[in-house]
This record gives sequence, structure tokens and C-alpha cells, in this order.
Amino acid sequence: MKILVEKFGGTSIGSIDRIKAIAQKAVLAQEKGYSEVVVVSAMGDTTDDLLALAGQISTKPRHRELGMLLSTGEVISCSLVAMAIQALDKKATSLTGAQCGIVANGIHTDAKIENIDTTCLKELLAQDEIVVVAGYQARNGDDIAVLGRGGSDASAVALAAALEAESCNIYTDVRGVFTADPRIVKDTSLLSGISYEEMIELAASGAQVMMGRAVEIARKYGIKIKVSSSFEDSPGTIITKEDCLEKVVITGVAANKNVAIIDIFGIKINSDVTAKILNKITEKQINIILMNSNNAGDGISNLSVVIKPEHIDNIVEALNWFASQGSINHYQVKNDVAQVSIVGSGIANHYGVAYEMFDTLSENSIAVLMTSTSEIKITALIPRENADLAVIKLHEKFELNNL
Amino acid sequence: MKILVEKFGGTSIGSIDRIKAIAQKAVLAQEKGYSEVVVVSAMGDTTDDLLALAGQISTKPRHRELGMLLSTGEVISCSLVAMAIQALDKKATSLTGAQCGIVANGIHTDAKIENIDTTCLKELLAQDEIVVVAGYQARNGDDIAVLGRGGSDASAVALAAALEAESCNIYTDVRGVFTADPRIVKDTSLLSGISYEEMIELAASGAQVMMGRAVEIARKYGIKIKVSSSFEDSPGTIITKEDCLEKVVITGVAANKNVAIIDIFGIKINSDVTAKILNKITEKQINIILMNSNNAGDGISNLSVVIKPEHIDNIVEALNWFASQGSINHYQVKNDVAQVSIVGSGIANHYGVAYEMFDTLSENSIAVLMTSTSEIKITALIPRENADLAVIKLHEKFELNNL
Repeated sequence: MKILVEKFGGTSIGSIDRIKAIAQKAVLAQEKGYSEVVVVSAMGDTTDDLLALAGQISTKPRHRELGMLLSTGEVISCSLVAMAIQALDKKATSLTGAQCGIVANGIHTDAKIENIDTTCLKELLAQDEIVVVAGYQARNGDDIAVLGRGGSDASAVALAAALEAESCNIYTDVRGVFTADPRIVKDTSLLSGISYEEMIELAASGAQVMMGRAVEIARKYGIKIKVSSSFEDSPGTIITKEDCLEKVVITGVAANKNVAIIDIFGIKINSDVTAKILNKITEKQINIILMNSNNAGDGISNLSVVIKPEHIDNIVEALNWFASQGSINHYQVKNDVAQVSIVGSGIANHYGVAYEMFDTLSENSIAVLMTSTSEIKITALIPRENADLAVIKLHEKFELNNL
Repeated sequence: MKILVEKFGGTSIGSIDRIKAIAQKAVLAQEKGYSEVVVVSAMGDTTDDLLALAGQISTKPRHRELGMLLSTGEVISCSLVAMAIQALDKKATSLTGAQCGIVANGIHTDAKIENIDTTCLKELLAQDEIVVVAGYQARNGDDIAVLGRGGSDASAVALAAALEAESCNIYTDVRGVFTADPRIVKDTSLLSGISYEEMIELAASGAQVMMGRAVEIARKYGIKIKVSSSFEDSPGTIITKEDCLEKVVITGVAANKNVAIIDIFGIKINSDVTAKILNKITEKQINIILMNSNNAGDGISNLSVVIKPEHIDNIVEALNWFASQGSINHYQVKNDVAQVSIVGSGIANHYGVAYEMFDTLSENSIAVLMTSTSEIKITALIPRENADLAVIKLHEKFELNNL
């Protein structure tokens, strides 16, 4: 059985006409000999509308009820897409995440996929049914849970992995992965291919096209992802193993404007205070985007953490307690910063890249507040007002328009 | 445990403010010492909107997918109501029909409740949780099914029966059950009480206030139903056993304008043709509202069936086949008729009632095309254009404004 998993999100499923177009695409894939699984997001702004409803009722709704509420958008989509396929005289069955055997754990609005029981799916595919699955959701015990924003990508890739699919095609409203956000940089290039690692770093650095968690699942199971537009026949971008790709030094530039830095001063080295602070942050289920720690001399170290601004209050509360205990000296919050990153598998072997990046920022009078590097990424925290300028200048410097 | 089941439908759950009002009512019931189960319909026009979406995709959507689609409206409501109760600092858990243990069978858009496993419900109630259940839906095997229009009433009454609740309160946008439709008759009376049987007949005769099937369940298990407005504190109407009620001869007048008559002529008596025709109608899952058969002499009988107009095409198709086989002579379709009924437990013991009804119709020059009687109901099929006049005149004749 040659299985194809195809996921439709965003404006690709924003109207009745688009739903009919999805049905035609699914039937076409089946006629080409594929066993076809379609994964769908909610139509247009449904998820935002449901969130707004909940917001009118409660400022802090319980995750269990919020997950149940948000799951309905994808159930509507999947039943409508199945009906559209049936209207073309083909067999189709819609499945909720739970019916599809997707089991997740963790909090009900940001659950992680644990395993998928594909028995029911495989039976349906063996009967030539096109299976339409509600993305973004799973069963968590007897409850319904959702996988966090963009979770339909994770549903699609995890299903592709569980079914050993030939490919996972992600249809969206853009033509694929670009070297930078086309809304900021004018002459971006469409990447024909990108490695899992680069895509994960780009997603973590603010690129919106794919959810990083979904790419991690694809990397783990070696699933080839194709990202392309559902509005035109385009080659799109293939996300796969690095050795399947042509080598380029830098693949893209991305910025994340939704970050804040908290600098914590005066932590005694050889104490367990750093561990306790991190434990406190983890307890509150706050994701640390970046972290740096440095020795300030006199047996004292300073710690900087980069987080989403919405978590500031929670962390400050904990830090006030540590300060009252004398465990830290003081702290400062910087809420007007952005994270700019360049990503590329060639970075590790090209030592000049970091220099060129910081030189470009300096030439444009952009202050660097904090840095972080990995094998395939260099990140600078800079004033938020300079974020777009930095992306444009770095894109220019590394000639990403010529890829 | 003193259990109360309260169901909110129609405009009672049409807005965020109404949802907050439901939450307050539920908390109040709990404070009075009740273990509280809330059953909700979809908000406002949600079900119609979902049906319209499906209609844009397919003229004949598969029942399985349509059921799944329609179930989402009540899931949205129940999660929002649970959030609203939680926002009042009370414990609440929302459950879909399936999670609540409601199992149904039959077609997925008109399923019948088979049984309810109350284990989960009782556990939650024992923990002082207010349980908010999505009405109108159930589990059918591994699928999601809905119970047919107005099915939330059936969910509520069946839950009240399974939990041996003290009462099942149905909140709606009217003050209770009236002697006739207040939109047609000006001086209707609100009934303080009505027997199960009378309510079933009124519902079958076109009264919209309660689903007949729900009242049948209540009768079977002896569940007291109170129908009242959620917009004001009113005594409403109690639906209960006849011997708990003050006796009145006629309880109400109702009309159903959405009917058609098919007269079938020339069926040989002693043949199995009538059985075969009825079998054909049943096979197509068409509900016969009324049926009359009479001997036309010469070993020939005629058969008249009253059905919903949307089923005419289906029946005509079958009848053409019977005619081609010589099993029937011919048939005629009357699609401009209405069914007018008077209902009351006193009918059986008051022989003058039928005479008074037909005399009133005759006095007002209303033709009677077909009649049918039961212990507690007399029905006349009349020209559709006379339906409102008939209801007004009968209401006047039996002095129902003075109840």
C-alpha cells in the first residue's frame, strides 16, 4: 500500500469552494494509486472565533473545557471534506482525532502525541476509503485534547510516520519555505529543499510556515515533508535529511518579535539556585526560548532567559521570592526586544558567518543584547524596533535572493 | 442524592449572557442541595447554520458525516457552560453525549437512545461536580450520532430516568404548554398540568414545545417534566401521570401544516398488497403520520396515508411500480392539506366532543378530507388554507381560554 498523507490548513480550507478543491485533490491522489489520508485544520478563523467565545466567559478557562471547545472546528472541517468527497461518488470516512486512534498526554490545550493506533485507519484504507482526519486533536484518557497552535501539522506528520507513508504533503497559503518572511524582505527566494534541522531552527526563530514539533517528528521517523500552496501547482519546498539536499551555507533569516529577556544577577556559583529557578519556571509550564549564563567573578554568576512576554508576570513572582530569600541579588526585565536568527547547515564549517552577521548588525547601528549559537543557527537578541531592518540587511548580506 | 436534570434550548442558550444565566441557575440548584446535571442544545441557529454548510456541499450527505457535523454545536455549548460555572468558582465538567455514556442505535441523524451507562456521571456528581452534557447526541458504535431534531429533550429525560432524578426541567423560550399556538390564537391558556399521553398527542399534532419521543421516555420511567421559560420565574407546565392532574375534557388544539395525503385506490382485499405497500414505505424509513383504510365494495379497498410532503416522491416511485404490476388501480396526491387535532384525556368519556368538532368545522365551511381518532385525540385533515381558522374556532368552541 502506497500511502500519502495530505494536510490542508489556513486559507486552504477557508471556504466551501476550497473544501470542494480539497476533495478533488484527494480523489486525484487516489486515482494515481495512493491510499489517501487527508488531515484538516479548522475553517478560516474558526479557532480564533471559538477562543473569543471562551474569552467572553472566562479569563482563565480550564484547559479541559477549552480543549473540548477548540476541537470542534476540525470536526466540522473533516465531516464537510468527507461529504465533499462522497459527493464525487468516492468512498470517504471522517474521523475525529480520538476515533483515528491518536492518543496524547500533557495539558489539554497543548497535548503531545504519545502513540497512534492505526488499526481502524488501515482497515478503512484497505477498503479504498479516503480517510479524512480532524487535525490538532487527540484522545487524552477519556477526554478530548488539542495539540497546541499549529498542531494539525503534528497530526499529519505523526500519521504519516505511523502509516509509513511515502510523503506528507502540507498545503498552505504560501508556496513553501522562503529565505525570509516575504512581508519584510522583498527579494526572498523559495527554498527547493531544507533539512529537518534547519527547518526546526527556522520555526523556533519565528518562521510561521511549519510547526517545529511536526518537523521533529518527521526527522525522528524520516518522513519527507513537502510544503506547497494549495492555490497553484508549485514544486514547493521539500523538508528532508541533509544529505538529500544541495549544500548551501545559509538557508534563511527569521525574526521573532514576541520575546522578552529577563536578566538575573548575583547567583552564587556552587549553589543550587540556578537549578531551583529553572525548576520553578518548568513547574509553571513556561517554555524557555534561550538561556545564557556567565561568570561575573567573585563566585557570582548571572543568568539571562528569553521567554514569551506573557510569562513575565509568572517568572517575576518567582524571582521576587528568590530575592526575598537572598538567593539572587536583583533582576531586570527587557520587554522591547526581538530575536533574529540566521539558519543554515553550513554555519558550523564556515567560521566567518558569525563575524559577518554581527558586523552587519553593527554597521546598521543595531545593538546586540544577547547571543546564542548552535551548529546550524546564530541568534542575536536586539531592540524590537530594529527587527525588520536586521532581517532585510542580513538577507542582503548573505545574498539569499540568489539561492 | 437528590438529582435534578435541567435542559436549556432555543434562545435560552442563544448568547454569552444566556450562558452565564444558565451557570447561575445551575449553581443555585446546587446550593439548594441538588446534584445538578445540565443538558444543553446548540447556541441559537448553530444547527441550522451547520445544515446549511452541509447543503452547500452535498444534496444528500451521508448520515454518518452529517451526524458528526451536527454534533459539534452542542459540544461548543456544553464546554462554554462548564467554563461559565467554573468562572463562578464551582466545579463543573462538560461531557459529550458519548463521554456521558449515552449509547444509541439507528441512523446517525435520527438515532434512538438504547441505554445510558451512568458510571462516569454518578462519580462526577458524587464529587460535587455540576455535570454539563451536550444534548442531542450519543455514541453509536465507534461513531457519533445525533438523535433527530429536538433530541436534546430526549437526552435530558433519558438522563433523568437513568439517574432516577427528582424532576427534569425543560427551559425554553415560552412559558410552558398552551392550549393552542399563541401565534395563531390570541387568548390561549397556559396549562398548569398535562398528562404524558396528551402531551405526546399534542406533539404529534404539531405542537412544537416538546419532542414527543422525550415525553414517551418520561412516561415509561415516570419522570416528572416541568416546561417553563428561562427568561422569567414562572410555574410553567408540569407533564406527569394523568391521576396527578385536575381533569379537563380538552387540553389543547394543534395544527400541523406540513403534511400531505396519498389516497391509493383499488387494492384487492385478501391480497398482501397493503402489507407490501407499507413494507416499502418502512424500508425507505418514512414515518406514516396517519393511515386509514376502507372497504370500497367488490372485494376492493382504498388506503390513505398521511406523510410529510418531502416523502411524496419516494412513495410515488413505489406506487408507480405497484400500478405497473396491476396491484393497485390508481392513486392521488393531495399536497395542500393540514392536520388539525384536539387533544384531551376526557375525549373518550365525552361522546359529544367529536360531533362538536366536526360541527364547528362545518359551520365554518371547512371541508374534512380524512379523520382519525384515538382515546385522547380527534384529528381532521382539512385544506391547508383553513388551518389557522380551524384552530381559532375550535379553541373558541371548547372555551380553552377559560382553563
